[in-house]
Amino acid sequence: MNTLQVDVAVIGAGTAGLAAYRAAKAAGASVVMIESGDYGTTCARVGCMPSKLLIAAADAAHSVGKATGFGIHVDGAIRVDGREVMDRVRRERDRFVGFVLRDVQNIPHAERIRGHARFVDDHTLAVADHTRVVARSVIIATGSHAAGLDALKHLGDRVIINDDVFNWHDLPKAVAVIGPGIIGLELGQALHRLGVRVAVLGRGGRVGPINDPEIRRYAIATFNEEFLLAPDAHIAAMARNGESVVVRRSGQDGAGGSEHFDYVLAATGRAPNVTDMGLDQTTLKLDGKGVPSFDPATTRTTSTGEASTIFIAGDAGNFIPLLHEAADEGRIAGGNAARLALGMEVKPGLRRAPIGIVFTDPQIGIVGGGFHALKPGTFATGQASFEDQGRARILLKNKGLLNVYGDLASGRFLGAEMLAPAAEHLAHLLSWALQNKMTVAQMLEMPFYHPVIEEGLRTALRDLNAKLSAVGKAA
Amino acid sequence: MNTLQVDVAVIGAGTAGLAAYRAAKAAGASVVMIESGDYGTTCARVGCMPSKLLIAAADAAHSVGKATGFGIHVDGAIRVDGREVMDRVRRERDRFVGFVLRDVQNIPHAERIRGHARFVDDHTLAVADHTRVVARSVIIATGSHAAGLDALKHLGDRVIINDDVFNWHDLPKAVAVIGPGIIGLELGQALHRLGVRVAVLGRGGRVGPINDPEIRRYAIATFNEEFLLAPDAHIAAMARNGESVVVRRSGQDGAGGSEHFDYVLAATGRAPNVTDMGLDQTTLKLDGKGVPSFDPATTRTTSTGEASTIFIAGDAGNFIPLLHEAADEGRIAGGNAARLALGMEVKPGLRRAPIGIVFTDPQIGIVGGGFHALKPGTFATGQASFEDQGRARILLKNKGLLNVYGDLASGRFLGAEMLAPAAEHLAHLLSWALQNKMTVAQMLEMPFYHPVIEEGLRTALRDLNAKLSAVGKAA
Repeated sequence: MNTLQVDVAVIGAGTAGLAAYRAAKAAGASVVMIESGDYGTTCARVGCMPSKLLIAAADAAHSVGKATGFGIHVDGAIRVDGREVMDRVRRERDRFVGFVLRDVQNIPHAERIRGHARFVDDHTLAVADHTRVVARSVIIATGSHAAGLDALKHLGDRVIINDDVFNWHDLPKAVAVIGPGIIGLELGQALHRLGVRVAVLGRGGRVGPINDPEIRRYAIATFNEEFLLAPDAHIAAMARNGESVVVRRSGQDGAGGSEHFDYVLAATGRAPNVTDMGLDQTTLKLDGKGVPSFDPATTRTTSTGEASTIFIAGDAGNFIPLLHEAADEGRIAGGNAARLALGMEVKPGLRRAPIGIVFTDPQIGIVGGGFHALKPGTFATGQASFEDQGRARILLKNKGLLNVYGDLASGRFLGAEMLAPAAEHLAHLLSWALQNKMTVAQMLEMPFYHPVIEEGLRTALRDLNAKLSAVGKAA
Repeated sequence: MNTLQVDVAVIGAGTAGLAAYRAAKAAGASVVMIESGDYGTTCARVGCMPSKLLIAAADAAHSVGKATGFGIHVDGAIRVDGREVMDRVRRERDRFVGFVLRDVQNIPHAERIRGHARFVDDHTLAVADHTRVVARSVIIATGSHAAGLDALKHLGDRVIINDDVFNWHDLPKAVAVIGPGIIGLELGQALHRLGVRVAVLGRGGRVGPINDPEIRRYAIATFNEEFLLAPDAHIAAMARNGESVVVRRSGQDGAGGSEHFDYVLAATGRAPNVTDMGLDQTTLKLDGKGVPSFDPATTRTTSTGEASTIFIAGDAGNFIPLLHEAADEGRIAGGNAARLALGMEVKPGLRRAPIGIVFTDPQIGIVGGGFHALKPGTFATGQASFEDQGRARILLKNKGLLNVYGDLASGRFLGAEMLAPAAEHLAHLLSWALQNKMTVAQMLEMPFYHPVIEEGLRTALRDLNAKLSAVGKAA
């Protein structure tokens, strides 16, 4: 067994791990990066990128169908070539993964170790049976995996996860999507638009990251105009039947009865990869799910003993499982781990205003901590519908509802939830405004061109500003 | 002849005039609004709205053709039904105009006068032969008209302007668009995508509002991949030939030779409606084109005598002929005209960071005063191409070039020019940043989601920031 002595050891070579590696190197530390699986990030391999590719094809198919509304007709059938669709998804996915692999290959061989890492103590890692790494600081960037599969394992190979979808060579006929979270909604709608019969079924009523009950109700109704979305589906039974699965529903939500599907796509959430890595050999405090507690500002974990020398970044920390947050956390962890190893102080890194986007159509956008984080009685809500919004109507995209929140005391903008056309762009504008601590009145002094979707946002801000001003006058 | 005595007279009931009327009323003045033509704004009748409707149909047709790239096929012909396309354009246009007419109808009859207004002196207007209006202040909001038609009048009814296009009941076969300004580019590309043979011909090389020579070159090359755009076309002759027009070109730019078109669409600019209204009877200072000089902050015109009591707003002032600017100017003019009439001081109003958008595909976006307004040696340029940008490539929209400018001394963001996918949204984000006086470094601390078009903007900002930092270090 080799023994390596380094300043910083990074466990995981995904988005967070790579960012951590680079930041630690830039800070002058000696670093090794340890990876047990294939190189390539969750985002590029099975996450953001391939899902957006599938969605792009789905939206293209949808647009062809909608062109009639503009006077553009197709004299013949619209044919989704499942093999071609999946060929492009896989080809472009492989290209994105290729960029990541190139980045990894540019890292000197001596600084990359392959194998499963287990903590021996806070400073020592055993990698497979070949290497022992002794590090002044360690960064856990081990990512996450699809969770909730145990309850479905009686369905055998008919149960798939998002990873499997992106390896398809053709499209199936029917898929039951279990879990209307981000992945379930995006893939469910995309498959539907590509001609796959889809049912998106959940439990408890949640829809993606939406917290605001008005927006959630609107989203459920809107998606149901297109495909079956039952966020509280009361599934009575799921059973294997030859090469298909029979899903039997009962109760209030949906028509009940049985339906056959080729696959059950488990989109039942993701769990951090923190088991089976010897965390019990460290001094770390773990939460109820076995995930190390940590300070999001510094990414430093909490030790039961002295100040911890272990940092955590990305999906492994289960904080905000988004690529740009993983990259930020990796950067913060890498810098702090290096500083600590080199005898300097750990310091808070840059955290940005929260932004979340679901690439459905209409898109879901969440800015700020979300509706549920607002304290009742301290805020007002401004609203705009996109059903009669000028530009949205011109584009035949006039579906959407936007709620914006403002602080009654300061007039400050607090965040937004929306199902809206171009929500990805509105969410950027709003998250920048939030991070700039703008008041709603200041936001209304900004440019709004004509005719644009942003004018719908202005309608909501005006509504909010009137409510904030009314309170100001009353006080 | 009736004589009316009022605080404020507004000449023109378009976007600027209506905003001025409302602002003056809100400030407590007595107001009349005088209109000589049909009610309805330039924007709703012949500008922003119907052009976006035509573009929406054109882009729908284009998308159907491009769906093949995603694996979505059409087994049969794509058929543009010109009558249906134009039906929707006119129907929705009429709906937008209807909203304006409803607004006008809600104005009390006594405050609306129909007829052509001429100044008798700074405070007196003669409206047609029926009314004399004596006003403490006057607002000129008379709008603009298509200009440059004299040189084409030998072509008779084969010469059309944008107004005519939106009244078509079907699409013609071939149109020569003279003038690659905003209207020429938008309508030219839209007609091309709807199957009309198009040539967009200019003189002098300008393309829309683009000033940056790199962006202009890129835009010319990009549009020429799709349709003929010759911004310096050397037209040797245009002659009527039965029911068509023969355009003969010569020289370097383009292949030369003759081509037949059904129509010549004159998109040769617009001129303010300020002639034939007795401005020579006032004390106003006029510029070389006969347009009153004025202060954009207050919209107050300049008098050769005492402080002027006349204000100007919207296209009539020839300042920034855009709807949202016309609305702002109308609001400022209305408030100031009322204040002056009621014995108060004129004050500067809210002017926003400049933003310009052309709704071609890719779109053109200009933020700030444009490249030509920057002082050489005081700024750096950051650049990003969209040809290999992740999300743009996913969407098969990977065409575009973005230049962002930053101040070498302060690090402040100064503006941008671009041909880019989603430029309308990027331009909003950037214009808000500009108005907030953000530095480029601060902008890079803002959220950028993944995968989004905004990441292309981040690439340009990083490039710019590196250049600004290099100078900072050298200094």
